[in-house]
Amino acid sequence: MTAVNGTGKLLGVGVGPGDPELMTLKAARALAEADVIAHFAKAGNASHSRAIAAAHLRSDVTELPLLYPVTSEQPTCSSAYRDAIRDFYDAAAARIAGHLEAGRVVAVICEGDPLFYGSYMHLHARLASRFPTEIVAGVTGMSGCWSAAGLPMAQGNDVFTVLPATLPEAELARRLADADAAVVMKVGRHLPKLRRALKTSGLLPRAIYVERGTMADAKMVPLAAKLDDQAPYFAIVLVPGWEARP
Amino acid sequence: MTAVNGTGKLLGVGVGPGDPELMTLKAARALAEADVIAHFAKAGNASHSRAIAAAHLRSDVTELPLLYPVTSEQPTCSSAYRDAIRDFYDAAAARIAGHLEAGRVVAVICEGDPLFYGSYMHLHARLASRFPTEIVAGVTGMSGCWSAAGLPMAQGNDVFTVLPATLPEAELARRLADADAAVVMKVGRHLPKLRRALKTSGLLPRAIYVERGTMADAKMVPLAAKLDDQAPYFAIVLVPGWEARP
Repeated sequence: MTAVNGTGKLLGVGVGPGDPELMTLKAARALAEADVIAHFAKAGNASHSRAIAAAHLRSDVTELPLLYPVTSEQPTCSSAYRDAIRDFYDAAAARIAGHLEAGRVVAVICEGDPLFYGSYMHLHARLASRFPTEIVAGVTGMSGCWSAAGLPMAQGNDVFTVLPATLPEAELARRLADADAAVVMKVGRHLPKLRRALKTSGLLPRAIYVERGTMADAKMVPLAAKLDDQAPYFAIVLVPGWEARP
Repeated sequence: MTAVNGTGKLLGVGVGPGDPELMTLKAARALAEADVIAHFAKAGNASHSRAIAAAHLRSDVTELPLLYPVTSEQPTCSSAYRDAIRDFYDAAAARIAGHLEAGRVVAVICEGDPLFYGSYMHLHARLASRFPTEIVAGVTGMSGCWSAAGLPMAQGNDVFTVLPATLPEAELARRLADADAAVVMKVGRHLPKLRRALKTSGLLPRAIYVERGTMADAKMVPLAAKLDDQAPYFAIVLVPGWEARP
């Protein structure tokens, strides 16, 4: 993974769902060899991906924290929000490009898998056509969750779907009914709506609610047994397909 | 991961998509600590999962090959085929249960992720309620493929779907048109049908054909540029959602 002929190299490195042991051997090697480690975090917060990777960072490595702008005062659909985020990714890509042009290997560490709902993708889109790039696949957050819960998810000819809880209720219900197995992400404030959609589609008895899936303080309960509709943004709901018919 | 009080422990260990370095640190530790390593293979063939894990097997470990019965003379929908497969999983579970009852830690190694379209699930369904069980999540085959191809798959509120190519053409076309991003598995002899379904749904220009995704001899081409309809059973087609609109 070292750069050749003075040209830098961009690495998108998945560090897995949270348990530092669910990082791959390749990710550990990439962290040991990179000149620069870049990681995303909200301004004022610690980076989750850095916390996962911490034991593998060399003491002499250059760290490049990429801090999301504080945009909580703006609705995410506003053009001001979109402009702020685009400017942030442009600036982050420019900082990384500077290191790549200087011949350095830059590893951008990502929770889960870099090319599956990851922030790294915004840098990849800006840099992969200009610099040698390599992706180190990672264990996704959803794999971490169903493994921790011991839930067989999909088998054989199952149709498996990942849905954002942000979809309208009728569309959630339709898509849930149309899949053999499903993962619903970004549950947060959408939980009451998701619960209704699962009821409509007949899947509520199979739905498992998961919070902090691969952390030591993980919470996993049948959604039907969770009596309130409070949920953090990153909570997910698993609807296993195969378990009902082994 | 060691067994306590003389009770054995069942480990479902994902060893990732093919590149031995895409195994997790936790999988490597499980392989180092297990008393028995079980792996699936077709009778007469080498086990893929064992090949991936080979460097991590202790020289004194007990190996338990689980050899699928030869059923090629029977159609997969026949009751004779189903009986043979069910008997095979029953017998495999019984052999593993013998080791678990003797207090041993048995690691069943699985390509990809154990609970995502994996054969391990048939053992899990038979044993997890009887013995302490732990799943070590793995990088899926599809993550390995889109990472090797450098294809950003899904982002933000994308709906992501995994489809078996065995579905009827009209259903494939409908489901492809209904998703933002898709992975089609088990392509094999279904490629001509899948190509037509992708054309119908307008997605053929975005479809990438992948063979032996994370092997040294991987083949990745736009499906539109692949001029024949020959494909092995395990070939997959990726339809990235986000790439078209970064």
